Amino acid sequence: MLKAIKTAVIGGSGYTGLELVKLLIKHKYANLSLLTSNTYSGMALQDAFAYFKNLNCAGIAFKATDSITYNDFAATDLVFLCLPPHQSMEFAANHLKDYRGKVIDIGSDFRIKDPESYREWYGKDHIATGMLKDFIYGLPEINGEQIKHAKYIANPGCYPTSVLLCLAPLAGLLSKNEPVGKEPFSDKILPCCGGPDIKGQLQIADINIDSKSGVSGAGRKLKDEYLFCSANENFYAYGPLLHRHIGEMEQEIEELCGSKFAISFTPHLLPVERGIFTSVYCKLRFGASYNEKSCCCDSNSKTGSKDAAVKEIVESLFSWYYKNCLFVKFIGQKIPQIKDVLNTNFCHIGYAYDNRTDTLKLFSAIDNLLKGAAGQAIQNMNIMFGFKQEEGLNE
Amino acid sequence: MLKAIKTAVIGGSGYTGLELVKLLIKHKYANLSLLTSNTYSGMALQDAFAYFKNLNCAGIAFKATDSITYNDFAATDLVFLCLPPHQSMEFAANHLKDYRGKVIDIGSDFRIKDPESYREWYGKDHIATGMLKDFIYGLPEINGEQIKHAKYIANPGCYPTSVLLCLAPLAGLLSKNEPVGKEPFSDKILPCCGGPDIKGQLQIADINIDSKSGVSGAGRKLKDEYLFCSANENFYAYGPLLHRHIGEMEQEIEELCGSKFAISFTPHLLPVERGIFTSVYCKLRFGASYNEKSCCCDSNSKTGSKDAAVKEIVESLFSWYYKNCLFVKFIGQKIPQIKDVLNTNFCHIGYAYDNRTDTLKLFSAIDNLLKGAAGQAIQNMNIMFGFKQEEGLNE
Amino acid sequence: MLKAIKTAVIGGSGYTGLELVKLLIKHKYANLSLLTSNTYSGMALQDAFAYFKNLNCAGIAFKATDSITYNDFAATDLVFLCLPPHQSMEFAANHLKDYRGKVIDIGSDFRIKDPESYREWYGKDHIATGMLKDFIYGLPEINGEQIKHAKYIANPGCYPTSVLLCLAPLAGLLSKNEPVGKEPFSDKILPCCGGPDIKGQLQIADINIDSKSGVSGAGRKLKDEYLFCSANENFYAYGPLLHRHIGEMEQEIEELCGSKFAISFTPHLLPVERGIFTSVYCKLRFGASYNEKSCCCDSNSKTGSKDAAVKEIVESLFSWYYKNCLFVKFIGQKIPQIKDVLNTNFCHIGYAYDNRTDTLKLFSAIDNLLKGAAGQAIQNMNIMFGFKQEEGLNE
Amino acid sequence: MLKAIKTAVIGGSGYTGLELVKLLIKHKYANLSLLTSNTYSGMALQDAFAYFKNLNCAGIAFKATDSITYNDFAATDLVFLCLPPHQSMEFAANHLKDYRGKVIDIGSDFRIKDPESYREWYGKDHIATGMLKDFIYGLPEINGEQIKHAKYIANPGCYPTSVLLCLAPLAGLLSKNEPVGKEPFSDKILPCCGGPDIKGQLQIADINIDSKSGVSGAGRKLKDEYLFCSANENFYAYGPLLHRHIGEMEQEIEELCGSKFAISFTPHLLPVERGIFTSVYCKLRFGASYNEKSCCCDSNSKTGSKDAAVKEIVESLFSWYYKNCLFVKFIGQKIPQIKDVLNTNFCHIGYAYDNRTDTLKLFSAIDNLLKGAAGQAIQNMNIMFGFKQEEGLNE
Repeated sequence: MLKAIKTAVIGGSGYTGLELVKLLIKHKYANLSLLTSNTYSGMALQDAFAYFKNLNCAGIAFKATDSITYNDFAATDLVFLCLPPHQSMEFAANHLKDYRGKVIDIGSDFRIKDPESYREWYGKDHIATGMLKDFIYGLPEINGEQIKHAKYIANPGCYPTSVLLCLAPLAGLLSKNEPVGKEPFSDKILPCCGGPDIKGQLQIADINIDSKSGVSGAGRKLKDEYLFCSANENFYAYGPLLHRHIGEMEQEIEELCGSKFAISFTPHLLPVERGIFTSVYCKLRFGASYNEKSCCCDSNSKTGSKDAAVKEIVESLFSWYYKNCLFVKFIGQKIPQIKDVLNTNFCHIGYAYDNRTDTLKLFSAIDNLLKGAAGQAIQNMNIMFGFKQEEGLNE
Repeated sequence: MLKAIKTAVIGGSGYTGLELVKLLIKHKYANLSLLTSNTYSGMALQDAFAYFKNLNCAGIAFKATDSITYNDFAATDLVFLCLPPHQSMEFAANHLKDYRGKVIDIGSDFRIKDPESYREWYGKDHIATGMLKDFIYGLPEINGEQIKHAKYIANPGCYPTSVLLCLAPLAGLLSKNEPVGKEPFSDKILPCCGGPDIKGQLQIADINIDSKSGVSGAGRKLKDEYLFCSANENFYAYGPLLHRHIGEMEQEIEELCGSKFAISFTPHLLPVERGIFTSVYCKLRFGASYNEKSCCCDSNSKTGSKDAAVKEIVESLFSWYYKNCLFVKFIGQKIPQIKDVLNTNFCHIGYAYDNRTDTLKLFSAIDNLLKGAAGQAIQNMNIMFGFKQEEGLNE
Repeated sequence: MLKAIKTAVIGGSGYTGLELVKLLIKHKYANLSLLTSNTYSGMALQDAFAYFKNLNCAGIAFKATDSITYNDFAATDLVFLCLPPHQSMEFAANHLKDYRGKVIDIGSDFRIKDPESYREWYGKDHIATGMLKDFIYGLPEINGEQIKHAKYIANPGCYPTSVLLCLAPLAGLLSKNEPVGKEPFSDKILPCCGGPDIKGQLQIADINIDSKSGVSGAGRKLKDEYLFCSANENFYAYGPLLHRHIGEMEQEIEELCGSKFAISFTPHLLPVERGIFTSVYCKLRFGASYNEKSCCCDSNSKTGSKDAAVKEIVESLFSWYYKNCLFVKFIGQKIPQIKDVLNTNFCHIGYAYDNRTDTLKLFSAIDNLLKGAAGQAIQNMNIMFGFKQEEGLNE
Repeated sequence: MLKAIKTAVIGGSGYTGLELVKLLIKHKYANLSLLTSNTYSGMALQDAFAYFKNLNCAGIAFKATDSITYNDFAATDLVFLCLPPHQSMEFAANHLKDYRGKVIDIGSDFRIKDPESYREWYGKDHIATGMLKDFIYGLPEINGEQIKHAKYIANPGCYPTSVLLCLAPLAGLLSKNEPVGKEPFSDKILPCCGGPDIKGQLQIADINIDSKSGVSGAGRKLKDEYLFCSANENFYAYGPLLHRHIGEMEQEIEELCGSKFAISFTPHLLPVERGIFTSVYCKLRFGASYNEKSCCCDSNSKTGSKDAAVKEIVESLFSWYYKNCLFVKFIGQKIPQIKDVLNTNFCHIGYAYDNRTDTLKLFSAIDNLLKGAAGQAIQNMNIMFGFKQEEGLNE
């Protein structure tokens, strides 16, 4: 029998914080020992948010985040930080020096490993640079092994989660150089087209990402653009040039493929409460030695051998990459929908290949508050503490 | 004083048809003489759709589309066809031979001029090929002069309207060849950077379009995916490979720039009733002779001279192209919103240039039922009959 | 040819203020000479709200409401006040003493005529009591004649508009006393059942109102409950006891029927942007002399003669009351829908009579920002200045 | 250790059926042995509805409902019927004669116990009248004891659930007669005001119910009114006279209070996917012996002793009635919200008392697909088979 751990949630009254609290209250092996919020300080959770009357949490109340001292959480096994930009690192710098438990930062302060890069994307000096190297980027489908042994986790951003899960299986194709036929195009992964004509003859030359997020992605902010009358029956792009998540994505893409790869990324605001739908457009480039005629995949294909080759490669790579991943469902040439993953920790991924323009279109759908934030944090917690990965997430 | 014309609306109970009828009833110089619908045959317009109780249209009732004969509309000056694919050409073949009035087809049968291409995109032989050459593509900001003298108008599709209005001013940059510095980069248009370093040194190498349409774009179809419980709080791409509007867009792009240009196009279903937001991603290529340092635009720029050069070119071209166009508002580096054009015939266009990936991002917003359909049809009617372009559209 | 009037809009950046500005800009006989807002002070209207790029209003900018002096609007013919509770009377007390033009207050300060009652419902002393008697309650379908000659108009609240239009035709039935057969049951209005058995034998004993309003009804307030993520996919009652509009409604009901009548009123928040749907439940009481058998209405009725009698009375009274009213459509036993009146100045009213519980159910639908606020203000302006009632409102 | 039961779901592709299947798949002690649907016959559940890829149900596929034979489900312990009106009784008449397991009918055929009444409300003769007496009305908070021992359950309608949970605690007040002071006003329940002045001096004289349901309440019907473009940004009443749920509600109210009580009920269509908000307006009548002055409750009240008396009675009765009911939360003078119960099996109930009109306003919120349908069915199953009441429902 597993023993329950004690957890603290610092900044628990935002959308992500509350989602996390819901998951923790229902989790068999986690207890919530401390919950903080400056706004709701002193209020019982059930009184502040009536939904919690449905859960067994009568004794839980908010303490003020600003008045927390080390003693308030010293006895916990895990601290979740759900704080706005710059506040996680302040909290860490002030309070976590002596803490012997583990930390999962759902905020954005510890995702970028390079302080220079942090300053560039977040417009401020990092004040806890000494801790940066200890944080593992907590995308379990990519870094599962490291997460197991991590003390500190930087929980990924919602957009990066939806993007990186599309790109990770294709890392071998990502290079600005001409295609050169390196792994993971092993014969095992590509049984059919493992011949010289395809293997190493396909590259992703360019990545253009168009992401659409529900309004909760912006957090609980009292701004005109997030009012019902502003967001409802509306849609638009925002931050079209230097969204902060780009730095995080490019860092992780470099981790995946070994070289720098600049991406174009454009977020949009969807008039839904939660959910992200991401369209990743990859411009393909076929190598000089690629020869359609000799490809074995295409014997029965009507649509031309490029179609068959891309199908073979994409489907083999995704099946291989996610074969042991419970929470990522590759659905082939179907298209995912936000509704199919709503209120779940799942990511659905589908694709289409447009041979007229050599564009590989990857589509992913997640719930931004779960797989994009609190659900992923619980998944990380489960892995860190040896619980089943899906513990408390199998709704 | 202008004399009112008599109009007929064939297929007037769909979303577009009803929007057109609303506009016609309020139009000072147009009367509605005939309205047809198989579904609502025999019903008064006000009884079928209670909204029309608000308008002065007590005498208007639906006749069955299938039972219309030439005599029913012979005396009209203008016939609007609002019929599903393949039915416009049937109606035209059967009924319009002797008609001396003008025709605006809001359906899709006469947009593609080449019967081969029609078969390819619409999966059926065209049965009124003899009439194809007489149809003018009715995008007034591009073909205004031809529309003035047209007898037959093929009203553009909603997606193509939102896309072509983004690309038309940039036609001179569209070429698969290396940049060669041709018009419209005249000195008048580009006063500052009209020098050899920019002029002719910039091309659009690739176009990737991500469009999002409200549910009314699909028409009034009793399908599971258009039910409230399916579309609400949902979002997804659909038809990711061969959407029929691609043929129409590539045809018109070729008209604009003089050469074939294949585009990647992906439509998505937005959980709003009406409105299209289109993101056009243009990959830029700078010519070999382009020299940042000698560009005069950049003296005060902090972000690098490519930014200044693109700004100069884009803003000059859009201002020039739309300077006399009432219904297209170029808003520079701001981003348009669906809400700003809802229930209007306007198109708002903004842009951003990402110098990290040489991507020019163009964003447009229209109301799919107005500028994307019925409003544009009225605009065309106004032009064809010598009324003010905005007559009846100035809500 | 009518001459255009000069108008000022004080407090023009809220939902109602902007709706009013839209209508004024398009109005043939009204010019907007002054527009104020503290929040957007100094900004051009088009820059603050991109929708206005669609309208011909390039020169219009906001001045700060707080810095307005008499000279800023002394030359205007009409001042619209669109200010929060208590601010209209402050503006009036400070600025309107010498003003020779007319005033339409879209706020709530001058609707309640009795200062005691004002204090009771609004929790504050009225500071311009001397002006109260000069304000006419601006519901044109009820007070049209007085509005023609009014200098000051108190524009009705949105809920009261939706309620009073349901009750006005039935004023003769409203009494706490036993039915006594007074007007308007003249033979002309009730030709069939004008006999002694029905006439004067029917009363409304009790009124229970359940109203549902779109979110814009709350105004542009940066509060958590009006955020998209709070209001979307949600619904609830609010202010269930002493909503301020009750005082206004009971005052006007007393005006209509000559005696005090306490009503139960419960407002609810609808997850739509605009629109009010009101269900008015009237408990009917039949007088002791009422005799079903001798009622002439019922010869062909299957559902019992009470049904026939109520139908006769309700339909006669509504048809009679609204026969010259363009903007109120009585649709009989059909049920109105918000969508049918959206973006219009119309009110649709339908009814059903439940003979099992003697409940007359009246249903009304309006657009809260138009017939419930800015549209009605323009309708009042038109009447006050001798324009056609529907001038500028015939969308 | 409890043993898992085998269940069958007949008609499992509607909104309620799918919600039930979701709950069953995650239920620790229930297996899904048979799933039927005519529309999706032959398809795997995961292929028909991609959401189910998230759940461990790879082997589940739909059989055609029309081709089911007794042998298909003879070995199950429980059959759920999720069929449209009239089809449950056909299925029961044809297939359930020999079935030794239990049955929960989520449809409406077995809720009304009297065949005459069934014909009146459902317009058709009941064809399985012999089985009617064996069905227990499955509202666990009211009939929990009977449900434990039931073989057949008629699962309540969604509206009746939201209404009856408001009225059940007040059953002692429900009578058309003058107040007579009967139970449940025992001293234990009303400790303070158990004196002669209140006890038995308060009655509910009239009940008027205004209910609002999300679109899923109508089921998955391909009708124009349930299209996104029809329901979105819209709201209206429907079926304002003889909604079928009235018969069911009046039957159960009679069960509760021992005498017939006619109610006025008006359903409305909310533009949300799921959720019901019900406003129950009870007109109170105080008995002749009621004496405000001698009521002990009121010593500190500012708002008058009727307020205090009603507060005392309502709060005591609700607290007493639901003290052991996990899924009903009485929240006093707060107002419930749909969002607080969404995706849960909970019902939240609040109240307000308007002493100006003697109106007690009760407000309830449920998720129509859970507490209003599938969740309640699982709750019934749990009770019938001796599982914990909340097993599989504790999201």
